[in-house]
Amino acid sequence: MKRPKIIDRLLRPRSVAVVGASDKPGALGASMLANLERNGFDGAIYPINPKRNEIGGRKCYAGIEDLPEGVDCAVLAIPRAGILPALKGLADRGVGAAVIFSAGFAEDGEEGLAEQREIAAIAERHGIVVEGPNCLGCVNHVDKVPLTFVETRCQPPQGPGIAVVSQSGAMAAVLATMLQSRELGISYTVSTGNEAASGVEDYLDWLVDDAHTHVIAMIVEHFRQPRAFLQAVERLRAAGKEVVLLHPGRSSAARESAATHTGAMAGDYKVMRAMVEQAGVVMAETLEELADVSEIAVRSPGLPEAGAAVLGESGAFKALTLDLSEELGLALAPLGNADSPALRAALPEFVPVSNPLDITAMGLSQPQIYTETIEALLVDDRVGAILVGLIQTDATTCALKFPALLKALEGRESSKAVVFAGLDEGAEVPREWLERLRSAGIACFPSTERALRAIARLTHRKAKVGATPAAPLPLAGLEAGTIPEYRAKQILAGAGIAFPEGRFAASADEAVTAAAALGGRVAMKAQASALGHKSDAGGVRLGLAGETVVREAWATMYEAVSAYDPTIALDGVLIEAMGEPGTEMIVGAKRDPEWGPVVLVGFGGVTAEILGDVTLITPGESVDAIAAAIHGLAQAPLLRGFRGTPPRDVAALARLAETVGRVMEGNDRILEIDLNPVMLYDEGQGLSVLDALMLVA
Amino acid sequence: MKRPKIIDRLLRPRSVAVVGASDKPGALGASMLANLERNGFDGAIYPINPKRNEIGGRKCYAGIEDLPEGVDCAVLAIPRAGILPALKGLADRGVGAAVIFSAGFAEDGEEGLAEQREIAAIAERHGIVVEGPNCLGCVNHVDKVPLTFVETRCQPPQGPGIAVVSQSGAMAAVLATMLQSRELGISYTVSTGNEAASGVEDYLDWLVDDAHTHVIAMIVEHFRQPRAFLQAVERLRAAGKEVVLLHPGRSSAARESAATHTGAMAGDYKVMRAMVEQAGVVMAETLEELADVSEIAVRSPGLPEAGAAVLGESGAFKALTLDLSEELGLALAPLGNADSPALRAALPEFVPVSNPLDITAMGLSQPQIYTETIEALLVDDRVGAILVGLIQTDATTCALKFPALLKALEGRESSKAVVFAGLDEGAEVPREWLERLRSAGIACFPSTERALRAIARLTHRKAKVGATPAAPLPLAGLEAGTIPEYRAKQILAGAGIAFPEGRFAASADEAVTAAAALGGRVAMKAQASALGHKSDAGGVRLGLAGETVVREAWATMYEAVSAYDPTIALDGVLIEAMGEPGTEMIVGAKRDPEWGPVVLVGFGGVTAEILGDVTLITPGESVDAIAAAIHGLAQAPLLRGFRGTPPRDVAALARLAETVGRVMEGNDRILEIDLNPVMLYDEGQGLSVLDALMLVA
Repeated sequence: MKRPKIIDRLLRPRSVAVVGASDKPGALGASMLANLERNGFDGAIYPINPKRNEIGGRKCYAGIEDLPEGVDCAVLAIPRAGILPALKGLADRGVGAAVIFSAGFAEDGEEGLAEQREIAAIAERHGIVVEGPNCLGCVNHVDKVPLTFVETRCQPPQGPGIAVVSQSGAMAAVLATMLQSRELGISYTVSTGNEAASGVEDYLDWLVDDAHTHVIAMIVEHFRQPRAFLQAVERLRAAGKEVVLLHPGRSSAARESAATHTGAMAGDYKVMRAMVEQAGVVMAETLEELADVSEIAVRSPGLPEAGAAVLGESGAFKALTLDLSEELGLALAPLGNADSPALRAALPEFVPVSNPLDITAMGLSQPQIYTETIEALLVDDRVGAILVGLIQTDATTCALKFPALLKALEGRESSKAVVFAGLDEGAEVPREWLERLRSAGIACFPSTERALRAIARLTHRKAKVGATPAAPLPLAGLEAGTIPEYRAKQILAGAGIAFPEGRFAASADEAVTAAAALGGRVAMKAQASALGHKSDAGGVRLGLAGETVVREAWATMYEAVSAYDPTIALDGVLIEAMGEPGTEMIVGAKRDPEWGPVVLVGFGGVTAEILGDVTLITPGESVDAIAAAIHGLAQAPLLRGFRGTPPRDVAALARLAETVGRVMEGNDRILEIDLNPVMLYDEGQGLSVLDALMLVA
Repeated sequence: MKRPKIIDRLLRPRSVAVVGASDKPGALGASMLANLERNGFDGAIYPINPKRNEIGGRKCYAGIEDLPEGVDCAVLAIPRAGILPALKGLADRGVGAAVIFSAGFAEDGEEGLAEQREIAAIAERHGIVVEGPNCLGCVNHVDKVPLTFVETRCQPPQGPGIAVVSQSGAMAAVLATMLQSRELGISYTVSTGNEAASGVEDYLDWLVDDAHTHVIAMIVEHFRQPRAFLQAVERLRAAGKEVVLLHPGRSSAARESAATHTGAMAGDYKVMRAMVEQAGVVMAETLEELADVSEIAVRSPGLPEAGAAVLGESGAFKALTLDLSEELGLALAPLGNADSPALRAALPEFVPVSNPLDITAMGLSQPQIYTETIEALLVDDRVGAILVGLIQTDATTCALKFPALLKALEGRESSKAVVFAGLDEGAEVPREWLERLRSAGIACFPSTERALRAIARLTHRKAKVGATPAAPLPLAGLEAGTIPEYRAKQILAGAGIAFPEGRFAASADEAVTAAAALGGRVAMKAQASALGHKSDAGGVRLGLAGETVVREAWATMYEAVSAYDPTIALDGVLIEAMGEPGTEMIVGAKRDPEWGPVVLVGFGGVTAEILGDVTLITPGESVDAIAAAIHGLAQAPLLRGFRGTPPRDVAALARLAETVGRVMEGNDRILEIDLNPVMLYDEGQGLSVLDALMLVA
């Protein structure tokens, strides 16, 4: 089913009005017209300028009111002050889309923000697609329609292309230059600026059905419609397309800067990152990576999978590659003499099979080594991607090596990702060779470092997760606010989360009975919604036994809490069997206002807090995937058994985190859950959740 | 004073013999001769080939024995089998240097290793410089002497050049290609291969006095003469030259691979890295970085110092730069409207002063903004380096922006490092602009990411440290081996290291007296050289008081140790006042067989062991520098006061580490010191070294 295509009127217009058309060189309206002319736009063009009768031989309209009804798109090449009246006029003439270049709206204070809201309201009321304000416009390279003042020569992509969708106009232009210099086809370039009415999400959605776009390369500073973005990504992925994202904000300084720049609040970067990666988006951290990853994604018949193989010609390069692979967490396929007969047969006797494979300089005298080793790697099921890292030297050397490579690669049947990289960046490589490699679906890199980074990013992208079976709980009747521990535990137990055996006591007598029933030493914890920090208030006593001790503890605890805050009325006291000591972990969850629920799991305690040794997962990740994420924590060796201690029950911790995710999915009212500490025991012995807090809307 | 220059005969020969000369295209001996011809070598050339009378019009000699006496250098373009006889013959003819291309020596097993040792012996006996075996030779670009079979066109550097010194011949060639493609002048390229007789250290030493070399770019897999290397670096640094090093081995896989490849044992990478960085070497981690750092070092009149400033034209770029700077630990100079009048005056009103400075697209219409902001940054003392990151777009845009840059940069008086980087890699930039920037001492980068990485590497390089006042201790009479705690503490106390008050007791009676004299609760620790793990053997008891308890502990301890290992005879027991609990740290030292003493300081305990939260320092680093290194540890926030706890006495810990360094410097017999745990107390309260082990040669 095709989606509604109102964006067609912006990106595939048959008629374009230029408000503020001009013939003054350098004026936006002049550059805009020149772009349409240069690229042979064959739809109707309506220049508007009250001071001219004609511009460059075209009839010029005095005002917007003179436009015929139903022009597809208007480009507003006028200063900010004129934008709102012009947009209203365009709406009256039934124009379908508008491009607003001017800045000075939401990013410029209250007044600008109000005007931007007015733009949004007009767009909403009339169903107009508005690109901007504060943007550089858009270019449809496929149909050669450049709606931008930046001098543009549209180059329709040969085959599946890359769409550039960026909030920053400058970065969209930068990325387009980078991609075109690598002879990569661009389908569309869209810069969304302040996104008054339509954002990156809307364009993504439109691109799902576009046959000319295989990869979307994005630069985003703040997602304004996170849920819509995730839905668009899901549809793109289902259509076999890849989304690559560069999003500043790893540092707090960058988040502040982005907020100032875009006039939008910075969201929670880590939550955003967990959610988009979980959706299958590939994150890039630099412009280089964004272009590099996009190149592999658009050129390669299949994407890199786990188990890269690297072919090289030098021992030092092999060692450097091992270092970088470890740093990047890029697993190399284990290849050896004993288990790789085809590679063994392809190599001279004195060259051992290994990965990276160092064929030495022998390829210069026996170029068939390149052909035969690559052929062997292409059919080796252990190998999920191949990087060929060659010393190019000069045209003579290239003429020896490249034909041997191409013999293995041109017309190959395997869809395995193959990437080429030169070791000696800047070497003079005759264009022919790179063109032939590219035609054969091989991304070509100027350095092996960059190739390895891009391969690692693509290898680490997450597979689609299944739907989450939600765990709805009976919350009706629960008041909004912090839920005290004993109530939170009662509720969460309904989802199958196990807590230490315990009883709620509303009086000292009940406490004595409860302690006796539990037997052994018990913990006593004061309970009230308003009591957020029990320990600070003297509301926690541990290791108690016997009636006298319990009564004394009851009295002291009530006194202490009253002294701490006389306004707090305790519900009573939770009496629990003492938990056995284990490794102190935490599991938590919150409902991000933009992205929805996210679950946190990691190490507890002060050291962990400093190290931030936790990981974010999203509801729907499998128990195995969560266990793998836990094993990726810095202190994970503690859980695997260290210095003779037995391994801890990581599977139980993963199940707990998965359950918490299902609880968040099944209960919209739950805003936060905090299970801290969770004592994790030896393998097979499970865990014990000692404390539980819940915040309910 | 000039150093002896036997390497002159290799790198500046006036006569060259080619053993295995040939006129068969592709033969090493033919390529070698062709290189000399192509580059117009005007010294004497002696082709040697028993089967020819002349080659290419030159008289050909039948054998080495026919050479005149005292030829400077012979290149051995013959298979391995002929190398040893040839080298002996050359020695007899008084040849000064030999280049050996053939492989199959130390890297190829016992027999090859024996032959390589014979090469070394001949070189030593006759004072011959031998390059290789298993190398690609060397090129003197200054005097146009290529002693390699790789097709070479010597390009004498204009001004100070870069010398490439690499163990790997392939990497030397790769790096040379990279540097030349950036129009950087190379003075010499030397590949040392297996280093039978002369290694990278020897060539470094020779380069100290070479006027054509300002930077040495190195690729090394294993330093065979670490001390000589450090000495050469010291002399190079004193001569104002920079050393940039790429050394694989961060990963254990790379270390194993390098050992296989070079036939040399892999050293301790972390120790190597600590030592060379302390000597002022700049470490690169990839080939890209090696070339990038070298470019800045050779072009820039001064090197980047702390406080980089970044000039850009886009808000998204600003945010990306903040992210990457934080990741790289690159401190940006704080610049604001209030404190930067010159920048303020250079900018339009709506553009705030900040760093990175986003001048927006205003530079397109007012190019003087580039000129004036750069001029302001050049004279701003807070700014230690300037990165100009511009969107190049096309020739028209370049013609607007570059003249404005050059106006500020050409003929400037400041020696501050300025680096240029394009954001849009691959944009067509007319060559003229880059040439003028380079002539003005500006390194030019294809991406800002790479420029930032290289600036960070150079900013972080260490300043030269002063001499270390050694702390000699009275070790005479001490037997070699593990020194038990009580003796180690007595000895180390002589260097001013403070331990808990304690007394050694040789009998139960003495123990009782000692405990009474110390008062309060005491620790008792069994003492014997052979008792490495006191706790495991039941040799540690804590918190004891009173005669009965002490006597009981004495008896139990002797029994337990005897049960643990009947061969251990205890010297007695150390009775110590109980140390107050603090943050558990460790300080250690070892004498690396190759690099000498190195000191370790960091967090103790199991978590720290897993995280490896320690840092290596070298004797001679100041207390302040050590404190800074401690503050760089992952868990350092614990030491700065966390959640209301007071900060810990980091200065005391730094002083302890510095003292341990002086002890290592002053006492060659001490192989290892292990102070673990060191309890660190609140600021001003110092620390307590609870246990001490020492290994003495």
